[in-house]
Amino acid sequence: KSWEGGRKGLDSRGFLIGPPLAQRLGVGFVPIRKKGKLPGPTESVSYTLEYGEAALEIQSDAVEPGQKVVIVDDLLATGGTMRAACELVRRLKAEILECLVIIELKFLKGVEKLESVPFFSLLQYD
Amino acid sequence: KSWEGGRKGLDSRGFLIGPPLAQRLGVGFVPIRKKGKLPGPTESVSYTLEYGEAALEIQSDAVEPGQKVVIVDDLLATGGTMRAACELVRRLKAEILECLVIIELKFLKGVEKLESVPFFSLLQYD
Repeated sequence: KSWEGGRKGLDSRGFLIGPPLAQRLGVGFVPIRKKGKLPGPTESVSYTLEYGEAALEIQSDAVEPGQKVVIVDDLLATGGTMRAACELVRRLKAEILECLVIIELKFLKGVEKLESVPFFSLLQYD
Repeated sequence: KSWEGGRKGLDSRGFLIGPPLAQRLGVGFVPIRKKGKLPGPTESVSYTLEYGEAALEIQSDAVEPGQKVVIVDDLLATGGTMRAACELVRRLKAEILECLVIIELKFLKGVEKLESVPFFSLLQYD
């Protein structure tokens, strides 16, 4: 692996943000995708949405233990997706530096689901 | 609009390629998405896949008539998706400079579906 840290982007609008950011920082990018879309061995986590169940996956060898990652998405709503992404990254024993989104819907209190993980949003809607 | 040209990326692995390229070139990026995912007025086109029907959409005001665009995706297989994307861009009267993919599965002859549109692939599988 040619990077020390990495950006993870969430399927699929997170893909619009993660790669340009990774390129700017000179680090790698790893996609976290909806279930069934990544080839090879994966880690998988199910979570509850307002409208049912969903599952996210990451490739099992996508990050090394101890690697530093930032998880990127466009929007934080109830926080279920971001929480699931954190769980995947933790399973691979990587270190989450921050979760980063463009827009945070503050009234949904999604940030509470992230517990002690540092979180940053560019825009907040109360 | 702040750009003269633009990159269009196809949902969703094209999203991994289009934005970094657009950033590098200092031009805008416009997503072409699967049906039902883009807000506001859209143009839509249906096409046939090996395993059924699909539809792609672009926002109706995403590009101006005469704007120059490059359409980007990860893979060209039978060419149905890329052909549909070209149709959308043409409906908005933009000029397609090129269709660009990382991998071309040449034995599927997808490039024939693109007719006279310039096409470039980084890797070819015969």
